[in-house]
Amino acid sequence: MAYRAKIKITLRPSILDTQGKAVHHALESLNYQSVAGVRIGKYIELEVAESDESTASRITDEACKKLLANPVMEDYSFELEQIGQAN
Amino acid sequence: MAYRAKIKITLRPSILDTQGKAVHHALESLNYQSVAGVRIGKYIELEVAESDESTASRITDEACKKLLANPVMEDYSFELEQIGQAN
Repeated sequence: MAYRAKIKITLRPSILDTQGKAVHHALESLNYQSVAGVRIGKYIELEVAESDESTASRITDEACKKLLANPVMEDYSFELEQIGQAN
Repeated sequence: MAYRAKIKITLRPSILDTQGKAVHHALESLNYQSVAGVRIGKYIELEVAESDESTASRITDEACKKLLANPVMEDYSFELEQIGQAN
């Protein structure tokens, strides 16, 4: 089996999101007054060719911790979706 | 009511994801051989202070089309979550 990991990486709520502020201002200037709280993060998909879900989950978690997310400033969450046979 | 829009913006499958390739190589060098198909996109959260879900959905869709996503290179999808009273 293989799994597709869908990972969301977001800035921690206490960290100022300057990119989000810029997008918020741009939306206001386009007359979307009801939009607020814009937060911008990353969305990453991986295919993990492992036969069991717990191994795929462990590998995804390690990849987030070691490489994809900055543990000081960012939180991450992911879900796994089965996508068929591994090679 | 207000709604939180959770937006995923991904490169279209036909577009080469150079950032994803770089992350894939980094994962290989960390000895994660079972990981492939790395695709990197954006994850954006907005709070939309509208009383009905269809208006919130329309505003989120317009924001994606006009500002957040590049319609030539990117696809987007979003879900709405009710988060309580609007101001």
